[in-house]
Amino acid sequence: MRRGENGMFGQILETVREKKPLIHNITNYVTVNDCANMVLACGASPIMADDQEEVEEIQTICAGLNINIGTLNSRKVTSMLLAGKRANALNHPVVLDPVGVGASTFRTTAAGELLKGIRFSVIRGNGSEIKTLAAGSGTTKGVDADLADRVTRENLDAAVAFAKAFARKTGSVIAITGAIDIVADEQTAYCIRNGHPMMSSITGTGCQLSALAAAFVTANPEHVLEAAAAAVCTMGLAGEIAYERLTSMDGNATYRNYIIDAVYRMTGEALERGANYEIS
Amino acid sequence: MRRGENGMFGQILETVREKKPLIHNITNYVTVNDCANMVLACGASPIMADDQEEVEEIQTICAGLNINIGTLNSRKVTSMLLAGKRANALNHPVVLDPVGVGASTFRTTAAGELLKGIRFSVIRGNGSEIKTLAAGSGTTKGVDADLADRVTRENLDAAVAFAKAFARKTGSVIAITGAIDIVADEQTAYCIRNGHPMMSSITGTGCQLSALAAAFVTANPEHVLEAAAAAVCTMGLAGEIAYERLTSMDGNATYRNYIIDAVYRMTGEALERGANYEIS
Amino acid sequence: MRRGENGMFGQILETVREKKPLIHNITNYVTVNDCANMVLACGASPIMADDQEEVEEIQTICAGLNINIGTLNSRKVTSMLLAGKRANALNHPVVLDPVGVGASTFRTTAAGELLKGIRFSVIRGNGSEIKTLAAGSGTTKGVDADLADRVTRENLDAAVAFAKAFARKTGSVIAITGAIDIVADEQTAYCIRNGHPMMSSITGTGCQLSALAAAFVTANPEHVLEAAAAAVCTMGLAGEIAYERLTSMDGNATYRNYIIDAVYRMTGEALERGANYEIS
Repeated sequence: MRRGENGMFGQILETVREKKPLIHNITNYVTVNDCANMVLACGASPIMADDQEEVEEIQTICAGLNINIGTLNSRKVTSMLLAGKRANALNHPVVLDPVGVGASTFRTTAAGELLKGIRFSVIRGNGSEIKTLAAGSGTTKGVDADLADRVTRENLDAAVAFAKAFARKTGSVIAITGAIDIVADEQTAYCIRNGHPMMSSITGTGCQLSALAAAFVTANPEHVLEAAAAAVCTMGLAGEIAYERLTSMDGNATYRNYIIDAVYRMTGEALERGANYEIS
Repeated sequence: MRRGENGMFGQILETVREKKPLIHNITNYVTVNDCANMVLACGASPIMADDQEEVEEIQTICAGLNINIGTLNSRKVTSMLLAGKRANALNHPVVLDPVGVGASTFRTTAAGELLKGIRFSVIRGNGSEIKTLAAGSGTTKGVDADLADRVTRENLDAAVAFAKAFARKTGSVIAITGAIDIVADEQTAYCIRNGHPMMSSITGTGCQLSALAAAFVTANPEHVLEAAAAAVCTMGLAGEIAYERLTSMDGNATYRNYIIDAVYRMTGEALERGANYEIS
Repeated sequence: MRRGENGMFGQILETVREKKPLIHNITNYVTVNDCANMVLACGASPIMADDQEEVEEIQTICAGLNINIGTLNSRKVTSMLLAGKRANALNHPVVLDPVGVGASTFRTTAAGELLKGIRFSVIRGNGSEIKTLAAGSGTTKGVDADLADRVTRENLDAAVAFAKAFARKTGSVIAITGAIDIVADEQTAYCIRNGHPMMSSITGTGCQLSALAAAFVTANPEHVLEAAAAAVCTMGLAGEIAYERLTSMDGNATYRNYIIDAVYRMTGEALERGANYEIS
């Protein structure tokens, strides 16, 4: 296991705080406030705008784009395609969070259209979502069948192979989050063991992570893989730090606040010390 | 007064935590995040989806449905009708929260359409909302005239009679919440005295309760009345526990978080001990 | 500098708590929950409704209107115009928060339409937003050129002159918020030095302030300038009080909650003591 090797994750976080990139979010109305506060917590700035009359222009004044398909509707799909294509033309990083893909034909079809129309720097989802996405876009059944929905110690090798294969197919960094997180491009995978199981009792920790990843990658475009992995470590480590603060009366609402607080207080040094991953 | 008789409320809560039902919410964008965290706090899982292209399919993979008419628009009314009819066909419980019905003709008309098109397991609102709903759906004026907007010790008998009559008319369990809460089917009414007045200084405690009731009823479909009453007691008791934690500097924002926290920490035993109701 | 002169700000806050005005908000889905809790914190009541089928009727049962153009779309512009004209006809105060005006042609055009179609009691934004608004509505270049985007000690005189000129042009009280806040009608300007820099690391403190101003002005329609200034002082002072509570582990999420809490706990006397302004 390599922990915090050569200070890169710490540097990536410091760069976000220095550059304060403006991140355009087209996202769901459930977790949007937490996403905005998370982007601010890491030192970047959020703009939320989803109307097709303005998304291209808004993207132009931003440095990155975060697309999240929760509470999707057809008007938002159009906006996502417009903003994503503009971001691609401007060479701005774009993150995709395929929330609930597979739960309805509408979301699956929309996610397919987004994958076809936009070049994503990072795609982040849980095991089921990424599996559905890969299946929909024609990844070989062989690899697909090897990936259970949750990444565990037992299926880690197969999951890493799957992530690398899907990264090769899409040209995106693939982040599969769960008990163990995998962040991979076609050659290298970070297997990350930060986080706490109680994070799944908060709505939108995944959405917040995707917004965080957009900020990290936008500030560090020359290190997309490492920036995405640093974002995953930051979120997980914040979940650990926040969990330590909980009293016996605190529950998921206070935990939600403390995680955002922990990202706000995170230093490059603390991230280096706490990041828990190996590279394969 | 009967308190926690034969452990049923505690059992109902434990069953939610065991079954972890997936609850589909079509709700407003004001309190949606709190509703999602409240559903998670009680041990169930939320999905928010309101587009007519996917609501039927989403309902199919869920076990229950929560419909809330805050920040309503006509596209959402269509979605509510589609999802509600699908839920009825699948025999999934459906909860209606008629937020602000009576405040506009649009909401009143929409609520009437929902009542006509969907069979609700539970309808939860404050006194004014339930009165408006009953008036719009033709409940006799006599009963209606007896119900003041707020249930108090003085008008409790009339309010109970009104709730039972409206339950008979609709075939739904009726939950009228306020200083005293009434949860009634056509034969039996729970009069519940949990809660704290400061809860009304938080936006969306009513919305959160409806989402909670959907989770409770979905996990306990054979005890709809008791499950709805248990949800009302859980929310009120959480309001009491959270209030005890407040310092002289805490206000409605911290109180909001502590109430969700208290539901997260609630045990069946604590609910039994704290539930404060009588049956009539 | 005059601080808390003759108890007016304290009285204004007490009047909000006494009258509990119902405030209609047409606002964005990012910060809407915080706005609702902020309106409740100061003692008023919020209603959120944005569909054109109901906004006029909703405004009729309310006492004031808060229009915020974050996450704008064309359907909401129509609703804003309908509700604003109805509010004007009923002589209800209307507040405009031109979030992100200038960031897209769509928002700039929409803000112009709103300015043309509705008489606003208060317009509140940051320096850039108010500058863009004034430029779009034809304020002389001379004044405009003197206003840097951020009000500082150096450009304070020019900023005050600009605010008064724009107040004269629009007939509205103009609130420009930043490190130093200016609240001006065409003759008098309050320069307010409450607040804390960390407030800018929370999403929506501006939106919350606009909602608060709507409540203050609606309860005190005969003192629009003073009520808007009192709202700005209340928000800034709450930011100071909340900051004092933060531990070394708290970040922007907890800070958000503590600010709303501080408004909830604010007394007229505390506001008088803490308000930090001069009049010019």
